[in-house]
Amino acid sequence: MYELGVVYRNIRRADSDVAARLGTFGTATVHEAMGRTGLLKPYMRPIYAGAQAAGTAVTVLLHPGDNGMLHVVAEQIRPGDIDVAAVTADCTDGYFGDLLATSFKARGAQGLVIDGGVRDVRDLTAMGFPVWSKAISAKGTIKATLGSVNIPVVCAGALVNPGDVVIADDDGVVVVPAATAQQVADAARKREDLETEKRAKLAAGVLGLDMYQMREPLAKAGLRYID
Amino acid sequence: MYELGVVYRNIRRADSDVAARLGTFGTATVHEAMGRTGLLKPYMRPIYAGAQAAGTAVTVLLHPGDNGMLHVVAEQIRPGDIDVAAVTADCTDGYFGDLLATSFKARGAQGLVIDGGVRDVRDLTAMGFPVWSKAISAKGTIKATLGSVNIPVVCAGALVNPGDVVIADDDGVVVVPAATAQQVADAARKREDLETEKRAKLAAGVLGLDMYQMREPLAKAGLRYID
Amino acid sequence: MYELGVVYRNIRRADSDVAARLGTFGTATVHEAMGRTGLLKPYMRPIYAGAQAAGTAVTVLLHPGDNGMLHVVAEQIRPGDIDVAAVTADCTDGYFGDLLATSFKARGAQGLVIDGGVRDVRDLTAMGFPVWSKAISAKGTIKATLGSVNIPVVCAGALVNPGDVVIADDDGVVVVPAATAQQVADAARKREDLETEKRAKLAAGVLGLDMYQMREPLAKAGLRYID
Amino acid sequence: MYELGVVYRNIRRADSDVAARLGTFGTATVHEAMGRTGLLKPYMRPIYAGAQAAGTAVTVLLHPGDNGMLHVVAEQIRPGDIDVAAVTADCTDGYFGDLLATSFKARGAQGLVIDGGVRDVRDLTAMGFPVWSKAISAKGTIKATLGSVNIPVVCAGALVNPGDVVIADDDGVVVVPAATAQQVADAARKREDLETEKRAKLAAGVLGLDMYQMREPLAKAGLRYID
Amino acid sequence: MYELGVVYRNIRRADSDVAARLGTFGTATVHEAMGRTGLLKPYMRPIYAGAQAAGTAVTVLLHPGDNGMLHVVAEQIRPGDIDVAAVTADCTDGYFGDLLATSFKARGAQGLVIDGGVRDVRDLTAMGFPVWSKAISAKGTIKATLGSVNIPVVCAGALVNPGDVVIADDDGVVVVPAATAQQVADAARKREDLETEKRAKLAAGVLGLDMYQMREPLAKAGLRYID
Amino acid sequence: MYELGVVYRNIRRADSDVAARLGTFGTATVHEAMGRTGLLKPYMRPIYAGAQAAGTAVTVLLHPGDNGMLHVVAEQIRPGDIDVAAVTADCTDGYFGDLLATSFKARGAQGLVIDGGVRDVRDLTAMGFPVWSKAISAKGTIKATLGSVNIPVVCAGALVNPGDVVIADDDGVVVVPAATAQQVADAARKREDLETEKRAKLAAGVLGLDMYQMREPLAKAGLRYID
Repeated sequence: MYELGVVYRNIRRADSDVAARLGTFGTATVHEAMGRTGLLKPYMRPIYAGAQAAGTAVTVLLHPGDNGMLHVVAEQIRPGDIDVAAVTADCTDGYFGDLLATSFKARGAQGLVIDGGVRDVRDLTAMGFPVWSKAISAKGTIKATLGSVNIPVVCAGALVNPGDVVIADDDGVVVVPAATAQQVADAARKREDLETEKRAKLAAGVLGLDMYQMREPLAKAGLRYID
Repeated sequence: MYELGVVYRNIRRADSDVAARLGTFGTATVHEAMGRTGLLKPYMRPIYAGAQAAGTAVTVLLHPGDNGMLHVVAEQIRPGDIDVAAVTADCTDGYFGDLLATSFKARGAQGLVIDGGVRDVRDLTAMGFPVWSKAISAKGTIKATLGSVNIPVVCAGALVNPGDVVIADDDGVVVVPAATAQQVADAARKREDLETEKRAKLAAGVLGLDMYQMREPLAKAGLRYID
Repeated sequence: MYELGVVYRNIRRADSDVAARLGTFGTATVHEAMGRTGLLKPYMRPIYAGAQAAGTAVTVLLHPGDNGMLHVVAEQIRPGDIDVAAVTADCTDGYFGDLLATSFKARGAQGLVIDGGVRDVRDLTAMGFPVWSKAISAKGTIKATLGSVNIPVVCAGALVNPGDVVIADDDGVVVVPAATAQQVADAARKREDLETEKRAKLAAGVLGLDMYQMREPLAKAGLRYID
Repeated sequence: MYELGVVYRNIRRADSDVAARLGTFGTATVHEAMGRTGLLKPYMRPIYAGAQAAGTAVTVLLHPGDNGMLHVVAEQIRPGDIDVAAVTADCTDGYFGDLLATSFKARGAQGLVIDGGVRDVRDLTAMGFPVWSKAISAKGTIKATLGSVNIPVVCAGALVNPGDVVIADDDGVVVVPAATAQQVADAARKREDLETEKRAKLAAGVLGLDMYQMREPLAKAGLRYID
Repeated sequence: MYELGVVYRNIRRADSDVAARLGTFGTATVHEAMGRTGLLKPYMRPIYAGAQAAGTAVTVLLHPGDNGMLHVVAEQIRPGDIDVAAVTADCTDGYFGDLLATSFKARGAQGLVIDGGVRDVRDLTAMGFPVWSKAISAKGTIKATLGSVNIPVVCAGALVNPGDVVIADDDGVVVVPAATAQQVADAARKREDLETEKRAKLAAGVLGLDMYQMREPLAKAGLRYID
Repeated sequence: MYELGVVYRNIRRADSDVAARLGTFGTATVHEAMGRTGLLKPYMRPIYAGAQAAGTAVTVLLHPGDNGMLHVVAEQIRPGDIDVAAVTADCTDGYFGDLLATSFKARGAQGLVIDGGVRDVRDLTAMGFPVWSKAISAKGTIKATLGSVNIPVVCAGALVNPGDVVIADDDGVVVVPAATAQQVADAARKREDLETEKRAKLAAGVLGLDMYQMREPLAKAGLRYID
């Protein structure tokens, strides 16, 4: 399925302002604004509470236990990018640690999303370099087999194309195709405006049952109240 | 097994003072005071460290990917209640976020225990609204199918009746039947008094082997010391 | 496989200075210095962020749901030891809580590594007593069946001999045989010195591709760059 | 939550004819006839392909690693019963093997549903004694702690009351409350009659889109066909 | 990420002869012939031993607990197709049973690959309709929400485009892009011819060490033999 | 922990007659005869129902995704051996298929126990070559990194020394140290003789409660019968 041994240098990145704007909404709102699609599986967790990142995807395909391609992708990172790393088979090894984070940071990376393991989490936390991974593991890796950089990859169940917008926070990771990023940002804006109003009403004691006008449809569906 | 499409409005809640008293002991002590029963499965984890809650259960039965009934149960919440949400099949979607938390808080809820996913955990943490869940996920839900409110539910492997006392902290979640809450609180009190004494002895260097008089039974059972 | 019902009192512990020295490097570095072996499985997680421990192993073999032997091993703990607890079958019960931690601390234990569950994590965190476990659970245990103390045990997939050095931090747990501890410490020292240099280069913008001289071998292996 | 140390001898069993009738429909049909409730979690699997059982539930509550109460429940089994065994914590030990199966068979048991492990599966298969379990394991158990017999139990996420009808086959296990067994059997009958008609139509090439009259609602919902 | 509410009617299918030819090699050989890519995750298992299928993919995107789109995709099936069903979130419900299998078979489907659950496995086995799924569950589904048909989907971690060749057997499921199917079939042919020779040698007692000329590189890498 | 890059050629195997004798008892009986120790974790499953093997262990340590050492261990296999393969990190790749099975069979191997994945299960089943593994996967592996042969390994949670007796069947895998194999076989013999008597009694309707004289201790422990 994957094209192996290639590095695409010129990818079309989503607009960086739109990426930043999408980042202000958070994953839940962005995912809703996309018709509830685009999320990576919920096993992808941030390595520290409060981690947040938004940027354009540079992708890398890794093999189990081999992190050599992370050095290859480092060269392709531009300020504002987030690296999205897929692995050809399930593996929890610690592919990424404080050395690579130092390099990624120097290149301007906003963070890493990896369908594998990560290590040196204490240092990464101190550096404020956010990572979403499926495991934390001290297990080291080798540099032996060719993968690819900036090809479309499947990461934690989601297809990520190079240049897509990636938003990540405590709730998970969402991918927005570059082509629809502007439109999703607008939809997210509207949704958030509505939510601000709703929040105020709910805080004042209004019930969702009334605010969303659920009582009549629920009664029609047969909901019975028993005293 | 479940009665669907019903909302029981008048449930007999355990005494709120007893619920509060049970809350002071923590889940480990309360569970021991009940003969080591009543715990939900350990995959139920708080969304932030240090979360604590104690209250009376209002229950809700949800369907996978559908959170409509959380608005129905909101109306039944009284100050001092904890909502216990069961789902008819395994699902990690984010059923509950900051809007519902705002509503639940306005109704006086002490927290939420949900055998599914939750989102907006950063906001919930900032609000100090404690949730115990089996997953964190930005994935949204719909409002389409009838469940029920205040029927007995199985949540994370434990039967919870409406009105039962629910205690939750970093160690997990325990359910105390309303009928035995007073008696369990008394047993927990005794257990804790004993533990205070024991703690002092152990801190002073006394061994559990001596404090619990384990040496003789261990020797009888055949324990051999080899130098 | 296991010898049951025995307590070995006189074990040969690795040198405590070497154990402390190994502790300064962290699990990732130590594991690399051992040829990438010695790690426990990554499901072993610290109960609080930032936990760190280094010491000599006293081992204990437990049965599912039975923590009696933890009191037996307590007597064998000397200042500088870490207790490593294996269980004869998968079990997530809360074997260890604040009482045992008080006792272990009084004996000079540096921490606990347990292939089972732990409870009272709020108290343990407040005490600063670090534990690595596979679960957190309020579920209590009994004291009924004989296990053993200071026999070789398999804990989370790794063989641990009494007296081995155990290093644990946010990234996991690694075991260093007593016989090679000095040599591993020296190798870790060299590795860390190299990493300091590398970190400086990477921070200055040098790429791993150049620093590790990867370009030529990658080209030979067939890596193609496409513009 | 559970009452410990009791054996209820006189339970009200569902009608045995109704239980047998429900057994002819299979778990999928029965579960649908109950409004899609009553299923145990899908991790419960038969130990051999083609296993089938239907009967009235005698329940037993076990502790992890302890099968003593299976001998207590054996005495309460009457011809036509299925034993439903719950465990107070997750455990995969082999609680049940060919000796107990011999005893259960002699008592007239139709099978066993156990939220734990089972062993001697080769012998059980040869005997044609069907078991649904969450694990297969040679690990033995002890006989030490009191559980209970014929109390309501939570087994694999479902509440089972003694006397309920239990239907199990390759697709899983479903529980029908004794009180509604007759009504569920009637609903299942209707459903199956309908399915026979539908099957014939579908085999003849009629599409579900037409048979279920889905085209119009799908078009209304916005489904677009693109050539 | 996904386009929702669309059905692509005209897809370009890989050549049916090539699909059949690929089917003769089995998943292991085909996956090797593709450079070790294209496999779905190993949790995808056949519902009966010996199941085998090869065909061209018609894809469908489902929502959790909703199988309505399976009727929509049925109309798009042509003889020689395999349906590949993805789900927008993890769900083990039984989306597919004997009625749908009857319909799919009438349309000429070779089998089903579904990243969810399936039921009526006894009937499906009797019909000889092969299914690869991540679960078996009697749990029924509803028909409420729009998905899509014949869009690219991520199924069990692999990207599947409509018209791709899908090969499935006891070892798992592999996807071959339509564009490279011929070339992969040729490579598989060569690989299999070589394996026939190798098998004969190994059966005659020749060691892989000699046949693959591994002794020298292993010695160079430092392998030591100790008597 | 592991010594890498070594092949021990001369290992002391347990007596082959004793290994064969132990094989006649099955894993459950042998494990009981060892004081309920020695079992590998229950995720190790046979690739076909009815698989059985008994032999002396030749061990091999593999790295994730690398099966080169299986060719090295093949040379060390003698008739009557079972290969026990451990992996340094979790990996489900298909390390072993019909080519290696052909080679192992030609060397006289009784089977394979591997803490990883296996493929070509249809062929292996047809050959009658039994394998116990944690996964089935078509995923191929490479031959790149040195492991070791005939060193002590941890496989699926159990320590296996070269030369130990390994017994495997439908219930799992058990390891018997060479030194105690004779004694365990005698204990197993006694246990099986007792079980034959017990089976006859139970089949005749005698209850375990009476046969094991459980009534009095249960009453003392407080078991109450309620009519």
